[in-house]
Amino acid sequence: MATTVTAPRGMRDFLPADKARREHVLGVVRGVYARHGFDEIETPVVEDAARLHSGLGGDNEKLAFAVMKRGLGVEDLRSAEAPLDLADLGLRFDLTVPLARFYASHRAELPTVFRSVQIAPVWRAERPQKGRYRQFVQCDIDILGEPGQLAEIELIRATTDALDALGVSGTSIRINDRRILLGLLASWGITEPAAADRALITVDKLDKIGADGVAAELRETTGSELPGLEDTIRALERADWDSVSGADWLDQDAFADLARLRSALDGVDLRFDPTLVRGMGYYTGTIFEVAHPDFGYSLGGGGRYDGMIGRFLGQDVPAVGFSLGFERLVDLVTLPEAESADAVVLVCDKDVDPVRLAALKTEALRSHHRVRLERRTKNTKNLLAGLAAQGFGAFATVGADTASLDGVEFRPLA
Amino acid sequence: MATTVTAPRGMRDFLPADKARREHVLGVVRGVYARHGFDEIETPVVEDAARLHSGLGGDNEKLAFAVMKRGLGVEDLRSAEAPLDLADLGLRFDLTVPLARFYASHRAELPTVFRSVQIAPVWRAERPQKGRYRQFVQCDIDILGEPGQLAEIELIRATTDALDALGVSGTSIRINDRRILLGLLASWGITEPAAADRALITVDKLDKIGADGVAAELRETTGSELPGLEDTIRALERADWDSVSGADWLDQDAFADLARLRSALDGVDLRFDPTLVRGMGYYTGTIFEVAHPDFGYSLGGGGRYDGMIGRFLGQDVPAVGFSLGFERLVDLVTLPEAESADAVVLVCDKDVDPVRLAALKTEALRSHHRVRLERRTKNTKNLLAGLAAQGFGAFATVGADTASLDGVEFRPLA
Repeated sequence: MATTVTAPRGMRDFLPADKARREHVLGVVRGVYARHGFDEIETPVVEDAARLHSGLGGDNEKLAFAVMKRGLGVEDLRSAEAPLDLADLGLRFDLTVPLARFYASHRAELPTVFRSVQIAPVWRAERPQKGRYRQFVQCDIDILGEPGQLAEIELIRATTDALDALGVSGTSIRINDRRILLGLLASWGITEPAAADRALITVDKLDKIGADGVAAELRETTGSELPGLEDTIRALERADWDSVSGADWLDQDAFADLARLRSALDGVDLRFDPTLVRGMGYYTGTIFEVAHPDFGYSLGGGGRYDGMIGRFLGQDVPAVGFSLGFERLVDLVTLPEAESADAVVLVCDKDVDPVRLAALKTEALRSHHRVRLERRTKNTKNLLAGLAAQGFGAFATVGADTASLDGVEFRPLA
Repeated sequence: MATTVTAPRGMRDFLPADKARREHVLGVVRGVYARHGFDEIETPVVEDAARLHSGLGGDNEKLAFAVMKRGLGVEDLRSAEAPLDLADLGLRFDLTVPLARFYASHRAELPTVFRSVQIAPVWRAERPQKGRYRQFVQCDIDILGEPGQLAEIELIRATTDALDALGVSGTSIRINDRRILLGLLASWGITEPAAADRALITVDKLDKIGADGVAAELRETTGSELPGLEDTIRALERADWDSVSGADWLDQDAFADLARLRSALDGVDLRFDPTLVRGMGYYTGTIFEVAHPDFGYSLGGGGRYDGMIGRFLGQDVPAVGFSLGFERLVDLVTLPEAESADAVVLVCDKDVDPVRLAALKTEALRSHHRVRLERRTKNTKNLLAGLAAQGFGAFATVGADTASLDGVEFRPLA
């Protein structure tokens, strides 16, 4: 028998305190998205391998864990003549490919404009590293079938409401449009589609390699001198709505669309960022990202990807999505303590009759929200500290002669 | 590209109405288990293959989907020289093997008596058939580290409270003890452990093959005539607390324990059933099952399995578990309708400015719990009927000239 008892490499066990915080965040986010008229759906964690490897997932396709359709032990594998035929499933690497498959399968049962919520784990066989896991939860909302800006407005509003409800304050939404990016590249002489895609990958590295690094890579891409490019990029980094509005490279239609979003999203700190790229190549219009001044990474992002959802259906379906960075958010959120005053512990001696203990617990549940029975241990102080950490607010000691909780004193735990 | 867009074989997509009912049931069950002092944990969906195939999972081990540790496309598999080495993970087939691994890994961080909740999907590569799925949710509570009957009492009470909270009435708990079963077999001359295990498998088929079938199989097992066995088994089927209490085959210690549970579980319809076996071979004491007069199958079950949880730890840990049949329960539960009166729809024409629509939605969210925007369609009647089915209670029509919801009339949807 294997000697290690840890979770598989790059994956995590969640102890009660972590699990409670995760469920709290999920509950709050679910509630806000339901309020905004979104509908939650669920798909199986595996998809047919052909779907996962159909080109919609970009580089993530390479990270899909392969799964064997039939239940097989290692012995079956050893003896299999054609192991290829056995691996016709895979663990999903995102929730967008399953959404496209789900939509193609169930479109007739869904509203014309479908507002979808998916909150579920995905898997990627990446090299494990700090903050990057092989199993993690994604938290996506998507609006399918709405070509107009109403989709962007509803998604951003629902997302910022969810962040507010979680008590995560100080966030802003960086926003851009692929058309503006392409206009910017065109002003540098980069117009050929494949060259533009490569250039966008370069611009997307701005955080990592800085304006000088981006400029150097772009010169390589174009083979041109592009004098003063470093200064231009640095100016773009500091750009805001006003400083850019008259630029000759600016796609004025796209900019007017963004300005309209800004006026619709009163109270949201919406910042125009002409250097925002977002990694995935499938975006076609608006793109956005949640930024927080305390963190170098985003807390979520999304955009319009009109070409993709309809691929399995064989027709175009307008689509916009916004994904919250659940794993990062969980670390920022603290559990509300309001309930702990109503959570009590009955500490009892080893020799108390279980029938009596059960009756005392039932009695306690009539007046308290949450009740835990605990045996007294040698180190009672440690026991009580641990219970306080688990959100219990008070305790009482019960012995063999405790017939009822009437008159039994509950003392605070903290 | 593959042409099928359905979920993988034996697995299900959940549309919004189904997903909402599932989340409702999970929320209620989670709430009751937390009230009773249980702590929820979570483990990864995959475990190392060596753990899954360590003998704790019985026949289910054969049903584990094998997973390849590294992210591989079919091409990698085709070229792999040793596919065996690639499949070192598997999808879990139950939540008990992961619990044993989790406990061995984290025992120092857990309370002495650990009351665990796990609500999560499991996978079995079974031949798909009605009501049996390849991905389904299990809903387990376990008490680890408590040797006394308090564990059974707390588990059964928490479970019946959860059923009550779900509005599932009329259930009873069938209860038995492995020691009573072994005494019964001994009275028929079956004492050798392997023969007793085989005989229990036979008794467990009582529902399917009846008393005559069981008697015939037992005669084969023992090689004895066992006169009148059919009548004995039929009498056992009808047995209750009183009719059996004086029987000479009855393990009186075990029976006294069960009687004590009965007295502790005031208000629970606890029925003694000396023919209750429960399939898994790992049970060591009390076993129980949730029965409902309207269904031929159980709605949950469990028992004491003292030998198993400590296997990965290398020491004995007393353990009792109770698993609710989540997939069956979901079908019995209806969503509460209380909220629908507060869920409203704004039906709007195609040409209404999205900025204005967003403002109207924000306004509606101030006074309603849940708000959906819908474009008017050709068949408004169908649209409204669909929205009523999704739990919305009222709607208002807004046009290009609607500046505010002040004075706009909401009409009931149902």
